[in-house]
Amino acid sequence: MAAKHLMCRIPSCISSAISTPLTSLKPFYHTQQFVSIIRPVSTACSVGIQESTNRLVVNWKDKLTDEYPLVWLRDNCQCTACFDQSSQSRTINFSHFQVNQKFKHVATTKDAVEVQWEDGHKSAYNLEWLKQRSFNQKEQQCWLDANKAPYSTWGASFFKNIPMLDFNAVIQDDNTLLDWLHTLDVWGVCLFKNVPHSLGQVGILAKRVGFIKKTHYGEEFSVQAKANATNVAYTQGYLQLHTDLPYYEYKPGINLLHCYIQYKGNGGDSLLTDGFKIAEWLRENDPEIYKCLAETRVTWTDIGQENGNKFHKIHHAPVICESSDGTIRRINYSQPQRDSHMAVPIDQVENWYRALKKFYDMALDPEYLVTFKLQPGEMVTFDNLRILHGRTAFGEHLQGERHVQGAYVDWDEARSRIRVLKANKAANNTGRCG
Amino acid sequence: MAAKHLMCRIPSCISSAISTPLTSLKPFYHTQQFVSIIRPVSTACSVGIQESTNRLVVNWKDKLTDEYPLVWLRDNCQCTACFDQSSQSRTINFSHFQVNQKFKHVATTKDAVEVQWEDGHKSAYNLEWLKQRSFNQKEQQCWLDANKAPYSTWGASFFKNIPMLDFNAVIQDDNTLLDWLHTLDVWGVCLFKNVPHSLGQVGILAKRVGFIKKTHYGEEFSVQAKANATNVAYTQGYLQLHTDLPYYEYKPGINLLHCYIQYKGNGGDSLLTDGFKIAEWLRENDPEIYKCLAETRVTWTDIGQENGNKFHKIHHAPVICESSDGTIRRINYSQPQRDSHMAVPIDQVENWYRALKKFYDMALDPEYLVTFKLQPGEMVTFDNLRILHGRTAFGEHLQGERHVQGAYVDWDEARSRIRVLKANKAANNTGRCG
Repeated sequence: MAAKHLMCRIPSCISSAISTPLTSLKPFYHTQQFVSIIRPVSTACSVGIQESTNRLVVNWKDKLTDEYPLVWLRDNCQCTACFDQSSQSRTINFSHFQVNQKFKHVATTKDAVEVQWEDGHKSAYNLEWLKQRSFNQKEQQCWLDANKAPYSTWGASFFKNIPMLDFNAVIQDDNTLLDWLHTLDVWGVCLFKNVPHSLGQVGILAKRVGFIKKTHYGEEFSVQAKANATNVAYTQGYLQLHTDLPYYEYKPGINLLHCYIQYKGNGGDSLLTDGFKIAEWLRENDPEIYKCLAETRVTWTDIGQENGNKFHKIHHAPVICESSDGTIRRINYSQPQRDSHMAVPIDQVENWYRALKKFYDMALDPEYLVTFKLQPGEMVTFDNLRILHGRTAFGEHLQGERHVQGAYVDWDEARSRIRVLKANKAANNTGRCG
Repeated sequence: MAAKHLMCRIPSCISSAISTPLTSLKPFYHTQQFVSIIRPVSTACSVGIQESTNRLVVNWKDKLTDEYPLVWLRDNCQCTACFDQSSQSRTINFSHFQVNQKFKHVATTKDAVEVQWEDGHKSAYNLEWLKQRSFNQKEQQCWLDANKAPYSTWGASFFKNIPMLDFNAVIQDDNTLLDWLHTLDVWGVCLFKNVPHSLGQVGILAKRVGFIKKTHYGEEFSVQAKANATNVAYTQGYLQLHTDLPYYEYKPGINLLHCYIQYKGNGGDSLLTDGFKIAEWLRENDPEIYKCLAETRVTWTDIGQENGNKFHKIHHAPVICESSDGTIRRINYSQPQRDSHMAVPIDQVENWYRALKKFYDMALDPEYLVTFKLQPGEMVTFDNLRILHGRTAFGEHLQGERHVQGAYVDWDEARSRIRVLKANKAANNTGRCG
């Protein structure tokens, strides 16, 4: 994604965390500049109601103007009868709510706009609060981006810039925790060194975020070769590039893989490709193939038994999933777990295979594919909605075992943690970003 | 949804479970008839390759014809080199795969089609296996429906037909468990009686499905009035109709609410409306309002602290969410948890409020709204992606406490369990459905 220059009034708690350079991540910030300019809180020059549009108009001292629909203002009255501070919740009974709001009087104080409504109710809106809720589209986008960082894609040559953080630091220090989660959010991958040589480290890391996302494979799972494996990952074979658990509608968001014991002979290397990079390239350069992969719903399946519990998961979804606004939001790809049932119009089948082959060949292209061998005491963490991962075969002439322990965390919890950490950090900072 | 008459060749393990009347659910099946006709497995009359389309053509004895793309056949070769039985997974290395597949020879045996490919590889496809994977669109839809039952919507007058199952039966008997989950899948709500008078029953029920979906409110949560509540549910106030946790991208799928202690005075009644019913009505009768609610992404938020852990959840989504195929798949509605930040073009704001008011007024209309008072020892379970629920106020003149215990289960686990239970049931049945 292109570098962005943002000028906006995002809340200081968020902007200061973004605009503060994160030392360990410095390489990334050379490619994506965040310039946040917070306009100082100041009394509005003038305030009025534009009756033709039913909007409050606020002319700020810095010459900018904001408009706020009256219906929105009434809905968001912050008085104790309309808003509960302890639960931070709107308490207006919506069944009594009038969409066609009429005002009697509007006035300003030093730091607020006061509105008296036709029914006698009075509301006061803090100016800073109003500014942060501007309906200006650029400001809105800025607020959205501040709450979920836009992603940046990468190819193989850029991977060396992916930071390797210290595991002890992420466990003990909130700034490192924020660095890690922000890196995952933007770049989709981050490595750790100095992970203690004991099982359970993925669980300890997950607890720093919130909690493990449980699946039918349990909470912490061991990736080891075993007889009669219920999953191809649990063999010594070559594990083709894939995303985990595409057969879950609620597919795990973040994958944590701790290298507990590495295979000492050749093989057992990790493979990673940024699936969003491939999808973006196709959207730009081969829109027919992109469209085919983004619109054709195929079936992802897992049937088996784990710890005595049978499972039969099915999810129907395209390889490339978009949000309703056209943003690429999820890649589904797993050769072993694509169902042989294919509920696709027959005349689209061959084209779909052609598109999938193009996608997969690109994912394996050295321009995009990264290969490295995790060492014991290292952990790779990545966005499972985005990054394809795999493993080279090992152990044809067995020279010891290989044991990787994994766990998942969902993005709901991770992004929540990012927002909380940013707010904490801002509360501890006295300075404002310029 | 209109009654459906299905003629298809869904796998017997699934079809027999569907076509067997579930006694306790009988009232529903009066409105939705499943007629499954399984064509007997028989040797195909003739088999050939249509070179113009690169398809295998199978003319069945019952005069029907199926076509299978060669590329799909090669991709789904069931030999031990291409398919791993223990993990039920495709093992073909897709990087070596050719989309343009050429055959040398095709032949039939008593129960299989054998294909020899140009590169010498041989594949055999069992006829029953092929039939179940027909590319006929009606058969494909039938397979999709068999794996996820289409929903049926209801209004207030129909609610009396919602079954109340025995809690002990659902814990001990797999057929009752299947009845319950199938009822939830189709109708979105089901009640239990005879729930033991102790906490933890929601967890016991969740374990019958798989496991609890954890959120920042924990696993099992208590809905009780308390001081400084972090959630409006934890007060004695009127709880407006809502869906739980719309601020989760992975919103909990199924809500289990066990009435442990009911308030003895007036109030504390449960309110339920089928949100899909309202959405369907709007789509049919007021498409502008439907479109507005289905296309306008608003922001759902929860900021607070639970058990010492701060959270700050945000999810941007419309009130009515559709799948990419236009199916209604999720309702988001919670007046307290809709953010005051509204990243919507300002000229759409008033219309959106008008649409939301229409939606909410309909949800409260006695034609759609059900009110009942849970008794101690009862449990209500419902689809949280679909059903709006609420509670009348209680305790103005306090006559004792009220304590409801809740937990969530996700649909990924519940639908997996349905498929497993159906397969088990079919394996125990000797008869075939007609």
